[in-house]
Amino acid sequence: MRARASAGALADANEVLRRCDVLAGISAMEGGIERTYLSPEHAAANAQVAQWVEAAGMRAWQDLAGNARGSYAGATPEAKTLLLGSHLDTVPNAGRYDGILGVMIAIAVVGRLQERGERLPVALEVLGFADEEGTRFGRTLLGSCAVAGTWETAWLDLRDGAGVSLRDALAAFGLDPDAVGDAALDPEAVRGYLEVHIEQGPLLLDAGRPLGVVSGIMGAKRFDLSMEGRAGHAGGVPMRHRRDALLGAAETAIAVEQVALAEGVVGTVGEMRVLPGAANVIPGRAEFSLDVRAATDAQRDRAWESIRARALDSAVSRRLTLVDTLRHVARATSSERRLSEAVEQGIRAVTGDDAPLELLSKAGHDAMAIASLTPYAMLFVRCGNEGVSHHPDESVTQEDVALAIDAFEAAVLAVGRS
Amino acid sequence: MRARASAGALADANEVLRRCDVLAGISAMEGGIERTYLSPEHAAANAQVAQWVEAAGMRAWQDLAGNARGSYAGATPEAKTLLLGSHLDTVPNAGRYDGILGVMIAIAVVGRLQERGERLPVALEVLGFADEEGTRFGRTLLGSCAVAGTWETAWLDLRDGAGVSLRDALAAFGLDPDAVGDAALDPEAVRGYLEVHIEQGPLLLDAGRPLGVVSGIMGAKRFDLSMEGRAGHAGGVPMRHRRDALLGAAETAIAVEQVALAEGVVGTVGEMRVLPGAANVIPGRAEFSLDVRAATDAQRDRAWESIRARALDSAVSRRLTLVDTLRHVARATSSERRLSEAVEQGIRAVTGDDAPLELLSKAGHDAMAIASLTPYAMLFVRCGNEGVSHHPDESVTQEDVALAIDAFEAAVLAVGRS
Repeated sequence: MRARASAGALADANEVLRRCDVLAGISAMEGGIERTYLSPEHAAANAQVAQWVEAAGMRAWQDLAGNARGSYAGATPEAKTLLLGSHLDTVPNAGRYDGILGVMIAIAVVGRLQERGERLPVALEVLGFADEEGTRFGRTLLGSCAVAGTWETAWLDLRDGAGVSLRDALAAFGLDPDAVGDAALDPEAVRGYLEVHIEQGPLLLDAGRPLGVVSGIMGAKRFDLSMEGRAGHAGGVPMRHRRDALLGAAETAIAVEQVALAEGVVGTVGEMRVLPGAANVIPGRAEFSLDVRAATDAQRDRAWESIRARALDSAVSRRLTLVDTLRHVARATSSERRLSEAVEQGIRAVTGDDAPLELLSKAGHDAMAIASLTPYAMLFVRCGNEGVSHHPDESVTQEDVALAIDAFEAAVLAVGRS
Repeated sequence: MRARASAGALADANEVLRRCDVLAGISAMEGGIERTYLSPEHAAANAQVAQWVEAAGMRAWQDLAGNARGSYAGATPEAKTLLLGSHLDTVPNAGRYDGILGVMIAIAVVGRLQERGERLPVALEVLGFADEEGTRFGRTLLGSCAVAGTWETAWLDLRDGAGVSLRDALAAFGLDPDAVGDAALDPEAVRGYLEVHIEQGPLLLDAGRPLGVVSGIMGAKRFDLSMEGRAGHAGGVPMRHRRDALLGAAETAIAVEQVALAEGVVGTVGEMRVLPGAANVIPGRAEFSLDVRAATDAQRDRAWESIRARALDSAVSRRLTLVDTLRHVARATSSERRLSEAVEQGIRAVTGDDAPLELLSKAGHDAMAIASLTPYAMLFVRCGNEGVSHHPDESVTQEDVALAIDAFEAAVLAVGRS
C-alpha cells in the first residue's frame, strides 16, 4: 500500500495532534496523564474542547452527564442526527490518543464542512464522552450509557477510591444527579454512530496498514475478586500453618494467563491490593480485579468458569475464602454492515487498499454502549510501539492521522448524503 | 504440666491485660490498632505509660529517641542497670500484645518491688521502645538501635508513605534529629537486658506449655523488589505480546513459598503494589517486599540466592526488569547463657516444668538490637488462635500472663541479686 496524505490533510493532522498534546497537559498526575470523570481536569478539558468545537462552526454545550457536545445543523430542521465521537477521559498514566484522537478527528471533519459552507441532509453531532475508562468509579462507559439511554440510577451509589459517591461527585461538578438519565437521545432522531479510535493493538502495525475497519467489539466481563486468609507474623508463623491470601491471588493471576492462552481469549489482573500490607506481616487479604474478553459471550463465560475453578482450587488448598463480584458486563456487539461499508470505502479511497483489514476490537469502546441506541461503525488507526496503549508510549504518525481524517470525512459524507 | 497462678498474680495479670486494652484504644486506625513511630498516638501512649511507670515507683521520662523510660534506683548509687523492656509501636491492624505485653509485665514486676520497698544491688530500667516494627519508615528497631548505640545518621533521610522524612518527623515530635544518637547507653553501666514477649507462633500452644525460654533470634533480611514490564491495554495487547509485571511478581511470591519449604526457612511477601493499577490496564510495574528468616545467616542467604534466581528466571522469560534492594539486615543472635538460665529457673519455679521448652525466635525483637550493647535473655508467653500475631486475633490468657509475671519477677531477682 502506498498511501500518501495530501498537504491539506497533513496540516489538519498536525492541528489534531497539537490538540491531543494540549489535552495531555490537562492532567491530575504530575509527569503523566490522568483525567477522570467529574474531576477538575474533566471540566478544564470540556472548556478547551468547547473552544475548538465553536471554531469548527458548531454550537458547543455540555450535556446532563457532563459529556462535551457540539452540534452542526443539517440542511433541513427535521434532519436526523449522525453522531461522531469518542471519549475524553483517561486511565492513570495514560497515552494521549486513546479516545481523544477520535474526538479531535470528528471536530476536524466538521471543520472542513464549515470551511466549505456545506450542510448535509443529516445534522452532525460531535460527542466527547466524559467517562469511558471507568477509572474513577470502576464502572466503564458512564458517559455513553447516559446518551444511549441505559444509565442506571443505582450507579449513583458507586464510590471512588476516596469514598465519594457518584451522586455527590455529579452535584459537586454542577450536574443534577437525578437528571443524568435525561441525557438520553431519542433513537428515532438518530441516524447512526461513527467513531475513530487507535487500534490499541499491533495488528495494523504488523500488517503494514495505516487504517482498518472494525467488525465488532469483544464481549467483556470485569470482576472484583478477593481472597481472605489470615494475617500473622512473618517470622512466627511456620510456612505450613499459613493462610497467605497473596499466594492465592498470585496463583489466580497466573491461572488467568494460562486459561487465556489455552482458550484464545484475553485476561488481565490489573489491580492488586494486599492487606494489611506490611513487610513483616503475612497477607490476610488480597483484593484484585479480573478483566476477561473474548470474541463471543459464550467463549468469554467459558474462560471465566475455568479461571474461577482454578481460583477456587487454590483457595481451598490454602484454606482461603474466595469472593467474586461481577462489576461490569459488556455483550459482544457487531458493527452495522452499511455504516461499515462507508468506512471501508473511505479507507479504500484514501489508501488505495482494495481490501481493508477488518478487525475485531478486544478493547471496549463507547460504540459498544451506543449500540443499544443506534447502529455503529468504527475506523481504527495504526499505533506504533508494538501497538501499546494505556501507556505514555502510545503513539500514532502524522501521516496515518491525515489518512484517517480523509477516510473518516469520506465515510461521514457517504452516510450523511445517503 | 499443672501450673496454677496465685490469686495475687492473677490480679496483677488482670491489670496488665487492662493496660494492654487501654493502649489498644490509642490508635490511628478506626476499628483496629495502628500506632507508629512519632505519630500523635505514639505521644499519647508514652504519656499513658508514664503514669503507670510512676505508679510503680519509678521516675518516668522520655529519651532522645522518643522511647518511654522508667528508672528504679538500685541499693547503691554506683549500681549497674538491668534493662527490662519491649516495644509500644505496632504494625497496621495489629494485635494488642506484641511488644506491649512485655512492657506492661516489666512495669508490673517493678511495681511488686516497690510495694515490698525492695531495692536490688542493680538499678532497674523499664524501656518502652518507640519503634520496633518499622511500620512507618520501613526500617525496624529504630528505638532500640538508638539505645544500643547503633543509630545511623543516614536514617534521618528515610521517608514515610506520605513523603515525610524521619528528620522532619522527629522535629515535629519535639525531638532533636541530630541528638537521637545520644540516647545510647554506656555498655559499662549496663548489667544485661531481659524481655518478655508473646511467642507469635504455635509451638508453646502445640506443646501445651504456657512459657518458654528463647535460645536466640533468627537472622533476617528484608528486600524491596520490583518488576518492570510494560503497561498496555487489557483488551488490545495479545497475551503473547505482554510484559505483565504482576505475573513476574506473582511467580516470585510463589517461588518464595517453595524455596522456604524446601530450605526450612520462612519467607514472606507482605507488600505488593501494582502500577498503574487499573482493571483495564496490564500492570507495567509491580513493587513488593520480601522478608526471609533462618536459624543461621548462611542458611538465610542461601535461601535468598535461590529466591533471587527464581525471580530472575521469571523476569527474563517475561522480558521484565528485576531490581532488588536490601532494606534491612538482622544477624542471627544468641541469648546469653546465664541470663537465660535465670529465665529458665523462673519458668521452672512457677510452672513446675523441669525442662522448659527452648525456642528459636523467628520474629525479630528489640533484644536483637540491644545485643550489640549488652547480653540478653527472653521469656516467651504462649499465644492462642494457632499462635497468630500481627492480627487482631492475637491472644493470651490471664493465667499464662500471671505465670509470666511470676517467672519474670523470679528471673529479675535472680539476675539482680547475683
